[in-house]
This record gives sequence, structure tokens and C-alpha cells, in this order.
Amino acid sequence: MSATMSNPAKLVKPSAADRIFNFSAGPGCLPDEVLKQAQQDLWNIDGSGIGILEHSHRGKVFDRVLAEVEADVRECGKVPANFKVLFLTGGASTQNFMIPANLLPVGGTADYLNTGHWAERSMEEVKYYGTLHVAGSSEEKGHSFIPAQGELKFSSNPAYVHYTSNNTIYGTEFHYTPTAPAGVPLVCDASSDIYSRPIDVSKFGLIYAGAQKNMGAAGTTVLWVRDDVIERSNKIAIERNLPTMLRFGVHAKDGSRHNTPPVFAIYVVGLCMKWLKKFEYAGKRGVEAMEVFNAEKAKHIYDVLDASKFYKGHARPDSRSLMNLTFRTSSEQLDEKFVKDAAAAGMDGLKGHRATGGMRASLYNAFPIAGAKALGEFMREFERKNG
Amino acid sequence: MSATMSNPAKLVKPSAADRIFNFSAGPGCLPDEVLKQAQQDLWNIDGSGIGILEHSHRGKVFDRVLAEVEADVRECGKVPANFKVLFLTGGASTQNFMIPANLLPVGGTADYLNTGHWAERSMEEVKYYGTLHVAGSSEEKGHSFIPAQGELKFSSNPAYVHYTSNNTIYGTEFHYTPTAPAGVPLVCDASSDIYSRPIDVSKFGLIYAGAQKNMGAAGTTVLWVRDDVIERSNKIAIERNLPTMLRFGVHAKDGSRHNTPPVFAIYVVGLCMKWLKKFEYAGKRGVEAMEVFNAEKAKHIYDVLDASKFYKGHARPDSRSLMNLTFRTSSEQLDEKFVKDAAAAGMDGLKGHRATGGMRASLYNAFPIAGAKALGEFMREFERKNG
Repeated sequence: MSATMSNPAKLVKPSAADRIFNFSAGPGCLPDEVLKQAQQDLWNIDGSGIGILEHSHRGKVFDRVLAEVEADVRECGKVPANFKVLFLTGGASTQNFMIPANLLPVGGTADYLNTGHWAERSMEEVKYYGTLHVAGSSEEKGHSFIPAQGELKFSSNPAYVHYTSNNTIYGTEFHYTPTAPAGVPLVCDASSDIYSRPIDVSKFGLIYAGAQKNMGAAGTTVLWVRDDVIERSNKIAIERNLPTMLRFGVHAKDGSRHNTPPVFAIYVVGLCMKWLKKFEYAGKRGVEAMEVFNAEKAKHIYDVLDASKFYKGHARPDSRSLMNLTFRTSSEQLDEKFVKDAAAAGMDGLKGHRATGGMRASLYNAFPIAGAKALGEFMREFERKNG
Repeated sequence: MSATMSNPAKLVKPSAADRIFNFSAGPGCLPDEVLKQAQQDLWNIDGSGIGILEHSHRGKVFDRVLAEVEADVRECGKVPANFKVLFLTGGASTQNFMIPANLLPVGGTADYLNTGHWAERSMEEVKYYGTLHVAGSSEEKGHSFIPAQGELKFSSNPAYVHYTSNNTIYGTEFHYTPTAPAGVPLVCDASSDIYSRPIDVSKFGLIYAGAQKNMGAAGTTVLWVRDDVIERSNKIAIERNLPTMLRFGVHAKDGSRHNTPPVFAIYVVGLCMKWLKKFEYAGKRGVEAMEVFNAEKAKHIYDVLDASKFYKGHARPDSRSLMNLTFRTSSEQLDEKFVKDAAAAGMDGLKGHRATGGMRASLYNAFPIAGAKALGEFMREFERKNG
């Protein structure tokens, strides 16, 4: 590993100087305070004489961690009492099949909104369990927009409606919560914008998110599942003969400890929630403050796009993501130069996904406003020099 | 979280004095050097200006981590070139169903050796995919022994033979590698004794292990799968219509990066492998040294049991585990007092599993010999006072 492995006793002195601006689309940057607390607790947590990686998942220390993270996940997200909070593994990619496995009765149809690559990846798994109906799509315009409610065409009796609230690759985001047909659970992959702004959770049947963008590190997927959706899944799991570990009901009943959970990944979500609860901005606190903060960060970039003929944004302005901002210059050569020059200036991870090309700036919750400001200035300067 | 959260800049100075002996059955203790390296890399790994939790799983830093951990996993385990090394999630509990899902053809039979709780948990999942045949069992004697090769009775045409090489709850361990019928893949859950001693991997079709005992922290499961077993699973996956994320072949093809893998958990396995490679004892190195080291640690406890009429071991002496040592005193009251007094003396995690009662001392690879010595002395002293 790093050169200091041979001298493990030497601890790096954390200081802002040895950290750069990390625009990665995920896993993404984490708050400095979270990292510093984790550094301590790796060695000895709660004065137990044992580090967080080494504690039994059924011992008192992890009992405390798990109880607090669940309470904080609920408090920060205003998750109603009739929802279970689950910490699973295998990423959102595993939920892509666990959701139809648990929610789609044999012979049933599920409705999906196709707004990009990850929505498509979700849709692909439906075929193993039933029939897919595409209720709305942005495919014909390169996934550059979010379909409006009036453009959605649901099937006659969907088991659920699934959508992806933010599209990391194309840089689009839902600025409304779709309304599913009456009585049909709304399911949302919120991996890349959970906790970025307040939402009314009561409108949903299930929300899931990989932790590694807005709420922690890779290694756990958080689910908020309404009780009646779990009850429904219990029947379908029996009908389908699902193995134990694939049943939502098993994890709900055993409080995410049916097996050894990913202790450290859950712990890091807990630290991020403590940080978010205390987060203050523009006279607000928590997720309400985060909403203003994220809008201001994105404005530093979108203002440059709007004032420029040099840069072209990928997303239609009314569908722009506040999490992943996608744009390009007039040529691939200049795009490459942009990414290279930005990296030299301490801004990492700006290369766009191969599906869209160009650049992508991911401004997740933990990303500092100074970094957004720096990128905006860099963009103006780069345009002056190369425009 | 801990009281220091409000002052995150203050780093704990690692020193042996603030760590205790952790006899936990898993997640278990890790080497101090591993924790110290992880503390540094959380903040900034490889001088990248970004911590290990925050790096893209497709970026250069994780490319390096993943390539090294795979090479080191192979080197330490002498894993032959015709095996794939996979890093999955969901623990050994997920493998309990993924193995029959991938290896048991529709209508097929799988043979299992029932040597304890975790073997039973594996056996339970077979019913979702085919027929279970119990080829050997220690159930009638409270799982206190390991059946000999001559006692095994295989079915006429098993798809594979599965066994659990070490039984954490009952404290028994295979001291031989079972021979499956000719051409039948041997599958082993080695979660609690992988890397504790050299084994001949070429005798196996598949070995799997949750990382949280002998090779890292909870959050990833390591698989060594022979190429022909993966080929076989590709056909069965199609036959069964398995969703993408449940197919061994998908993860093998995509080098454990079909989706976002548990970056940190894999990284910690890498640190443990670096530590194991360098580990020296009794003039040996690596896993060979570890074998002598583990036998010496266990001897400190088993010698006390053998010389005592006060303590009674659960395992038959020829089946004793070197990883999890189970014993009791003459009464439940004294067992409780033992656990309590030991905790007061800085020895944590000695309470036995509820299935066996009494005490359990887990002496995984990273557990120091000083701790085993201290427990042996404590046992003698406790017997003198209470015997």
C-alpha cells in the first residue's frame, strides 16, 4: 500500500492542504469531520479498547451505533413511523432485482420511467420476474430531460411504479415527485440525490440508495420501505420461493442483522447523519440547509453555462441536476484539455461518463462551496484562454 | 457517536495501552499496523489528496488497490491460476443460496456435511433450488466432533459436496480435507479458518469466506472459484433465469466490478494480506508461520483444559478448533463470573454462543500470543480461586 506502510506508527497530520477538490460521481467526497472521527474510532471506539472494524455486530457498541444511525436516518429524512429502515448490501444494482423479486407478483407488470443508464439497468432485471412497461422515457432525446407528469402513461394494473430521481450520467433530476396510479406503490432509486433536499416520504412505497454518494461510503444500501409494502413482499416471497437473504421481510424482522451486516459502512452513514443534522446554512439546519447549499453550489457552474456560448450543458435547463452537472466545450480535444488542466489545478474527477463525453462535476452534499466557486472561476478562465 | 465528535480535529494517539484483548468470534481483532495504515489512508491515500472511502471504484487508486489485493490473496493462499478470486457482498449467508443457485442444476442433489449451526444454515437454502443429501453429521453428539472420511456417505450423483471447515459455535475444525466423489466439486465455507494454515486449494472447486474473521472486516466475502465451476454455473444461471447480480460468471467476467464494490472492505483485506505476507514466526513466513503461531496460541488454553477437572471442553480432542476454543466450568453461575472477571481484566468477548453456553475464546490470525497466554494464566488463577 502507500509508502508509509513500513512505518505505520507515523500518522498523517490532517490539514486542508493535503486534500483536493473531489468531483467524483461516486464514491464521492465525505466531510472532513466524518473522516477524522472515523480515524479515531478505527483504533478504539467509545473507549471500548476495540476499534469499530473489530466489534461484534451483536455487541453493545454496535447496538448503540445501529440504534443511533437508524434514528438519525429517520430524523434527517423525516421518514414516517410506518416505514422500516434497512441496511443491505450489493448496492442499488442488487435492489434492481430484489425489488421485482419482492414486489412483482408472478404474472404481474411493473411500470418504469426510463430517464437514463441506471433506470435502464433497473428495467433489465424485471424480465426475470414479470412484465416491464415503460411508462415514460427521455431516450429519444439522449436522456437530456425529465418527462412531465402529464407525459407518463401507466399500464392498467402495475404492481409498482419505479423511477430514478437523479441521473448521474446525463445530469438530469426530477424536480417533482411523480404521482403513481391510486394505491400503487411508488419506488424510487434515490442513490445520487437522497438527503440533498427535503422530500415527502409519505408519497412513496420504497426509497433506496447506495450510501456512497450523499450519505456515506460504498458498502451498504439504505432502504426505507412502507410496512404494507413489506407485508405484500412477504406473500410474494413465499409465492416465488425466494431464498432467505433475498426477502425484504427477513431483513425487516431482524433489524438488518439477519446476518453479519457491513458494520463499518453502516457506521459511516451514522457519522454522515450526525454531520448533516448539525449542518447549518443560510439560517437553516439539516436537509433544509442542504437544499439551499446545494442550489448555491450548482449556481456557480450553471451561471457560467448560461452566460457562455463556449460551453454547452447536456441537460435541458428545467431538468438540470443539482448533484451532477454535465457540460462540454466545442471539441473533444478541448474537453480533454479542460479535464487535464483542472486536475493540475487540484480539481479531480471531472471527466464525463463515456456515454455523454465532456465533463461532469458532482457536487454531493459533502462537496464544499469553495470547490464549486473554484470550478466556476476555472471555467471562465478556461473560456477566456481557449474560447 | 463518541464524545470527541464535537472536537474532530483531536486525533487519538495510538498506543497499546488503550487497546484490550478482543476474543470476539467475529468481526474479530485486526493487526495494529493495519488499523494505523487505514487511519492514514482514510484521509489521503497514495498522496492522491482523496481518502480511500472517497475514491471512484473505477479510478487509478482503486485499480491499484484491487490489483494488489487480488495478487496478495493469491500469493498468501497459493490459489492456482485456474481459479478466479471474487470479492462479493452479503456475507457467507448470501453464498448459502448463491452456491445452490449457481451450482445445482434443476432437479439435482447437493451433498452437505452437517457439523454445526452454520452448516445447517447453508443446508437450509438448498431446498429453494434442489434436493439436499446429508452425507455426514455430528448432530447426535451436540456437534462436538468432526466425522471422519470413512463415515461420509455421499449420494449417487451429487452436483457438489459442501462442508464448513471450522465451526465457530461448537469449536470444532476439520483437520483433513474431505475427498468428494471423483469429478464432484468440493465446496468449503472457510469463513473462520481461511489463511490460518496452508491448504491445497487444487482439491477444491470453490472456497468462500466472510472477511471479518481472518482476513479483514465485515463487508466483503472472498471467493476462490475454479474456472470449470464458473463455466458450469454459467449454464445453470441461464437454465434458472438468475438475475444479473446473482451470477458468479458476471462477477468473474467483470473482475468484481460489475457494480460498485465495497471499496473499503476490499482495501482492508489488502492491508491484512500485506501484513500476513510479512508475518514471521518460528523461522517461517506468511501462512506457514501463522500455522505454528495459531497452534501455540491454542496450546495455552488447551493445556489448561487437559490438566484440569474444573474446566470441560466442548469439542472432542481430535476435532478441536484452533480458531474458536469452547469450554465451560462446573456451573452456569461460575461461567458468568468467569466472563465478568475476565472482562474486568481486559479480556473481552469470551461469552459462549447461546447454543453451547459456557465460554468461547476466538484466537484468529491477528490475535496476539500475549492474549492467549494471559487467558491461560487467568484460567489457572480462576480455577484456584473457584475450583
